[in-house]
Amino acid sequence: MKRLYCITKAATRLPLQVEDAGRSDAEIDQLKLPRVDQNTRLDNRVIDLRTAANQAIFRVQSQVCELFREYLLGKDFVEIHSPKMIASASEGGADVFRLKYFNRHAYLAQSPQLYKQMALMADMGRVFEIGPVFRSEKSHTHRHMTEFTGLDMEMTFKDHYHEVLEVLESLFLHIFRGINERCPRELEAVRAQYPFADLKFGDTALRMRYPEAVALLREHGPAIGAERLAALEAQREAATRAGEDEKARDLENQVHDAREHLKTVPTHADDEDISTKDEKLLGAVVNRVKGTDFYVIDKFPKALRPFYTMADPDDPMWSNSYDIFIRGEEVTSGAQRIHDKEMLLSNAKELGVDLGPIMDYVNSFEFGAFPHAGGGIGMERVVMLFLSLDNIRKSSMFPRDPSRLTP
Amino acid sequence: MKRLYCITKAATRLPLQVEDAGRSDAEIDQLKLPRVDQNTRLDNRVIDLRTAANQAIFRVQSQVCELFREYLLGKDFVEIHSPKMIASASEGGADVFRLKYFNRHAYLAQSPQLYKQMALMADMGRVFEIGPVFRSEKSHTHRHMTEFTGLDMEMTFKDHYHEVLEVLESLFLHIFRGINERCPRELEAVRAQYPFADLKFGDTALRMRYPEAVALLREHGPAIGAERLAALEAQREAATRAGEDEKARDLENQVHDAREHLKTVPTHADDEDISTKDEKLLGAVVNRVKGTDFYVIDKFPKALRPFYTMADPDDPMWSNSYDIFIRGEEVTSGAQRIHDKEMLLSNAKELGVDLGPIMDYVNSFEFGAFPHAGGGIGMERVVMLFLSLDNIRKSSMFPRDPSRLTP
Repeated sequence: MKRLYCITKAATRLPLQVEDAGRSDAEIDQLKLPRVDQNTRLDNRVIDLRTAANQAIFRVQSQVCELFREYLLGKDFVEIHSPKMIASASEGGADVFRLKYFNRHAYLAQSPQLYKQMALMADMGRVFEIGPVFRSEKSHTHRHMTEFTGLDMEMTFKDHYHEVLEVLESLFLHIFRGINERCPRELEAVRAQYPFADLKFGDTALRMRYPEAVALLREHGPAIGAERLAALEAQREAATRAGEDEKARDLENQVHDAREHLKTVPTHADDEDISTKDEKLLGAVVNRVKGTDFYVIDKFPKALRPFYTMADPDDPMWSNSYDIFIRGEEVTSGAQRIHDKEMLLSNAKELGVDLGPIMDYVNSFEFGAFPHAGGGIGMERVVMLFLSLDNIRKSSMFPRDPSRLTP
Repeated sequence: MKRLYCITKAATRLPLQVEDAGRSDAEIDQLKLPRVDQNTRLDNRVIDLRTAANQAIFRVQSQVCELFREYLLGKDFVEIHSPKMIASASEGGADVFRLKYFNRHAYLAQSPQLYKQMALMADMGRVFEIGPVFRSEKSHTHRHMTEFTGLDMEMTFKDHYHEVLEVLESLFLHIFRGINERCPRELEAVRAQYPFADLKFGDTALRMRYPEAVALLREHGPAIGAERLAALEAQREAATRAGEDEKARDLENQVHDAREHLKTVPTHADDEDISTKDEKLLGAVVNRVKGTDFYVIDKFPKALRPFYTMADPDDPMWSNSYDIFIRGEEVTSGAQRIHDKEMLLSNAKELGVDLGPIMDYVNSFEFGAFPHAGGGIGMERVVMLFLSLDNIRKSSMFPRDPSRLTP
């Protein structure tokens, strides 16, 4: 005999239907069904998360963390847990959350940067941390949150900081291959709702020096940018024809911005900052010209990096620092750090940085210090960009931004 | 030809010597050397961490996290990352840190409790999280910090919450065996400075119901407590004879407290709260009588647990909740949670809990809910108690307490 028990009853009216939340754009357009907007989804995240695509996204996310750790543990890294409540706004005071700490104030760590370096100076050799990172930025973009998960690593090296960059590059390749191997069902579930092109990557990472990347942008940016502009214009016209006024206006703004941006590309100087728009266009250029969606820009201009970044010993205009990109968006920033107290002091003085509040960090380099480098990876960005999702909120279970603190 | 390069120079005067920081108490007493006190160590943590014992402690810590994850990933758990900045003081407003969040306030999560339950209601089935946990408690004890690392797990079950308790128990045994197998050198390095008795544990966990644990305390507590009291008195007399006045005074206070506590043991009621002193004495009793340092107390009195704890369906005076102990100190608290919205509402009403600020959580149970249970493990406590360290600050790399926010 079989029995059925009622464990709990569901409410008879749900704020949204899982079925509606799980439809692809193509299906919605074809069947002319209403679209569940992002705020409705996030306000009712417990239902929204039940879609096949969301179940898959968070299984991929879990695997990204596991792949990160397994690679580094295999390379003799030690996992650490550094404090998130700190005494001073460590890296620039503007974007930091302040809290009441008994009879004084504390701040939320914007990264484990200073602590992972101190762990190395305490003889740990190679360390990593997975933990929340807090940024009090009033950014309402598709790729910023006020809280995200940092995958951080830092290690000492023998001769050259490229030893560390190589570990980072291999780590990413390990993550990419691992997702493809271990999550085939999850990738299909995501693709069914959010179609995407497989990430293109080779057996090694493409690494370019900063001026090389800028040269590539100057050379191929105008033509490829023009193609992208034409595609945007076509979309806008289609929206206008379909009477979708709001969408058409939004696309018109994008067309305008892209056109203005394209004017600046041919004259981009070698050591000039690469904007978010430059990055995105460069991603399209690299995809087309070099056949990869994964690349590294090495040797950033010194002026663009924080005070603790090591200058290039051959030319102090440049620095031993790098960013890592997936599909034209930055997922990692890293560098060789200054391990010499005097150099750190003179550098901070030159840049007008007050080291007073972080003297414990500065002093950690005077007990016999090791040359070292590392980087911090935005975990949700890796998930978003691997799956080519259009918004970072899709790869954060309960996202936080300036206007969202619930659920 | 060999060459030597100077990478960096160390300062000629160090605030403490690694050699001094690395000595055992026995060696210090024998050689009559000065003792490096805890604050000096923590103020200069980068040097203090260089001792062989500290290097070992943090390698054991890294392994504890890895063993936790590997066990749960092997049981189909998914790793999640829940927000640490939340809109309301979720579990009692007193011990929560408040921060400024743009034009409003936010709070630091005291645990991922509500979020891991919501993840289950979103069909995740089995989830775990490793992340910081914040408690604004003015506790200056050997086992409290304002920030620690929570090892949290939560899962749905089929028939009985003991399915979950069994996973937790096996998880701990996996961690204990794993440390012994993988960290023999680390254990020796810790032992050389901080001698300790190996943790006693069997092939299965010892599980007692709350009244059974209290009965054990009543039966054997007085005799074993008297032995411990006599040992303390002997230590005090030795200190007095050696002219160590401060130590003698401290021990005299401990003798007094232990004597007062012992008076209460024979009349401890079955459903009365077990105090920290009771717990410690019970740990000694269980070690002697049952031959284990690892045990579980199941079925706590309902009155001692939070509003979301499921009552025992056979007798609502008790609850489906448990604590896990190592050497007489609690390392995990857990329970079956209420998955029925109406029951949650009526329970909160009875206990005077305002659910207004956490209605997203309450509502997550009305879309078809699953019976579920879980627990939260204090990671630094597990490391401290496995190694029998005398202070939680020894198992936290950069500890935080009401008076310490640096380095």
